[in-house]
Amino acid sequence: MNAEIVAAGTELVLGERINTNSAYLAVQLAEIGVTPVLHTIVGDDEEAFVAVLKRAVKESDLVIITGGIGPTLDDITRQTAARVAGVPLVRDAKALERIEGLFRSWGREMKPSNAVQADFPKGAAVIDNPRGTAPGFRMRVEKCEIVVLPGVPSEMKAMWEASVRPTLVGASGEAIVAKSINCFGAGESDITEAIKDMMAPGRNPLVGDTAEDAVIKVRVRARAGTYDEAVGLIEDDMAEVRSRLGQLVFGQDDDTLESVVGGLLISRGLTIAVAESCTGGLVSKRLTDISGISAAFIQGIVAYSNASKTALLGVAPKLIADFGAVSEPVARAMAEGARKSAGADYGISVTGIAGPTGGTPEKPVGLVHVAVASRRGTTCRELRLRGDRAQIRDRAAKHLLNILRLDILSGD
Amino acid sequence: MNAEIVAAGTELVLGERINTNSAYLAVQLAEIGVTPVLHTIVGDDEEAFVAVLKRAVKESDLVIITGGIGPTLDDITRQTAARVAGVPLVRDAKALERIEGLFRSWGREMKPSNAVQADFPKGAAVIDNPRGTAPGFRMRVEKCEIVVLPGVPSEMKAMWEASVRPTLVGASGEAIVAKSINCFGAGESDITEAIKDMMAPGRNPLVGDTAEDAVIKVRVRARAGTYDEAVGLIEDDMAEVRSRLGQLVFGQDDDTLESVVGGLLISRGLTIAVAESCTGGLVSKRLTDISGISAAFIQGIVAYSNASKTALLGVAPKLIADFGAVSEPVARAMAEGARKSAGADYGISVTGIAGPTGGTPEKPVGLVHVAVASRRGTTCRELRLRGDRAQIRDRAAKHLLNILRLDILSGD
Repeated sequence: MNAEIVAAGTELVLGERINTNSAYLAVQLAEIGVTPVLHTIVGDDEEAFVAVLKRAVKESDLVIITGGIGPTLDDITRQTAARVAGVPLVRDAKALERIEGLFRSWGREMKPSNAVQADFPKGAAVIDNPRGTAPGFRMRVEKCEIVVLPGVPSEMKAMWEASVRPTLVGASGEAIVAKSINCFGAGESDITEAIKDMMAPGRNPLVGDTAEDAVIKVRVRARAGTYDEAVGLIEDDMAEVRSRLGQLVFGQDDDTLESVVGGLLISRGLTIAVAESCTGGLVSKRLTDISGISAAFIQGIVAYSNASKTALLGVAPKLIADFGAVSEPVARAMAEGARKSAGADYGISVTGIAGPTGGTPEKPVGLVHVAVASRRGTTCRELRLRGDRAQIRDRAAKHLLNILRLDILSGD
Repeated sequence: MNAEIVAAGTELVLGERINTNSAYLAVQLAEIGVTPVLHTIVGDDEEAFVAVLKRAVKESDLVIITGGIGPTLDDITRQTAARVAGVPLVRDAKALERIEGLFRSWGREMKPSNAVQADFPKGAAVIDNPRGTAPGFRMRVEKCEIVVLPGVPSEMKAMWEASVRPTLVGASGEAIVAKSINCFGAGESDITEAIKDMMAPGRNPLVGDTAEDAVIKVRVRARAGTYDEAVGLIEDDMAEVRSRLGQLVFGQDDDTLESVVGGLLISRGLTIAVAESCTGGLVSKRLTDISGISAAFIQGIVAYSNASKTALLGVAPKLIADFGAVSEPVARAMAEGARKSAGADYGISVTGIAGPTGGTPEKPVGLVHVAVASRRGTTCRELRLRGDRAQIRDRAAKHLLNILRLDILSGD
């Protein structure tokens, strides 16, 4: 069973907004065995939209459209779908009542323009929108099912989950399950070298990889008659990949370095204090992204100036004068000072030159020192990072979290 | 002059990676008067790719393809373009030499598989890739020009800028210029209400808006014979929008609240210290995203625990006991403590309940107090924010930065 995913919106086709709906739906479809073969973005040009949809219903078993069902003149998905189906638009009394009720509940008057959101191609089934005013709809055109959802991601996802996904599960007669094993600390080529025999094209499971912001995700994707069979197929490969890559593996699927480290701290009852210079709060921010981290995270200090390093972390001014703020002795003193001042199990630190200015021949942009202090001593590491300011800060934070992860695990 | 933008990659069509290349190219094309009418994403299915490209060259004057020109088996853009043009692939000796030279300069041996990156449809012009091993190419098929660039965004953008954009400027005979005026502090409907007469469809300039993460961008887009004429057309509208929206406007185009606030601090020689609880370092992180901020940013303190609020910011334990950590008195004490301990011109603070847990009937998830302290006194604000943990943290940081912005401006 094949699907095309269409996103409607002039702001999308003009590049003013990034389309994330189609990727979300693609992952969802693949999980239930529907193969996404094409994504299309089209603007509010009705002729172009009609042409896309006429072609799509011929080529695919399922077409999911997001967007273009708001109340404004450039919302043309309703009439486009009606034209392709060769039916008129008709107003749905129940849907209209629901929209009017929503406005009443907000204490606002419904503008007449909002009534068009209750218009649907004749014969279409309405899909309730529990989070907004624009209902979706679904209809059959020849052998193809068309499903129309709003462009607002939160509304689209809620409607997909509640009303569309359940009706499609099992419809394709097969399932594709994909899982990823997430790695950090080596380059993409080193990782693929270790598993290249598993990456042969056409193999089932299919093993591949993607690299994004220095995190390498090894993906194992299996196709089978049922979801359970597909899961069974990937389990051996997942174990093999994990065993070959060892400590480079920090988690799987949606795991991030911070979610894994946060989980380790919380589950082991460990506390932490953070001292940052060049990352400017990014390490603390990432750790506190994790719900429940208040059990572990005591405090973070962004000691951007040298005076702050001394006043807040107790770094001796002589250390800074002798070695410079970006140096192993200062990173060590920051981590140990952070640990001591908070009375935490762990103190971690990062100091470096994120650029674009501030580099020297001896201490170039990208030079970063990180340190992890615990009762078992202090681990320091010098990093030489490439990229722009944002990339250097990102990589520095990731390396620090990864060294902390390995340190926690080594204490087991 | 119309264009279709095609992104090739199985990881894109399966939704495992978000496509940002097409949006980048769409904005670039619109600026030089080429209208993007369709974006398509296709995987490594050669028949599907051929069908897309055959249709695209009939419908558009220009087709830009990104991706699928790497060395692996699933990189099929070269042969697809050759099939659609009806020509064979031929190896380009100069391109091959350049790829071999790159590997030599890295001290690595070129694998035989990399040689396919020097294969091009016969008659195509090679586009140098200054940042990677995969050269692009361009060719004419019937009345359509096809331009092929790599999928790696940094390589694609460098090649677009250096080799493609300059050859297309002026080719369309018209220019579209779009600028945005960035607003914060009011809902989308309040903002559009103030400018609704300017938002009439078909008007030139066309005025529209997009909302993303509580920032409303009012876009003014003009079409004219030349770039300069189009710029002239939008200037009056830009001034009118700014005058109607007043203090809600914080900047334009790529300006963010932090870049604007950072710029204000640096240009006025003001210093700042940050005290955060629920945002966990996000405010400090955003301010230190700005290159050159070290002149203004002294330190940030993430006082997550009550003990840290007392030890690092001097918040009286009785204040926390009497009013709770999430309260106006504690926000005020945090901001004033941050200012004092750093000796800064400004101390700013945020304390709140980001959720999903920790809320009570009196202090629900989303309750946030922010404060801005300066020599002119302390401004406090209570916020009631909606959304998930990440959204509440994001909005809290934005409100705080915006209040700081207004405070700095009010001191003029």
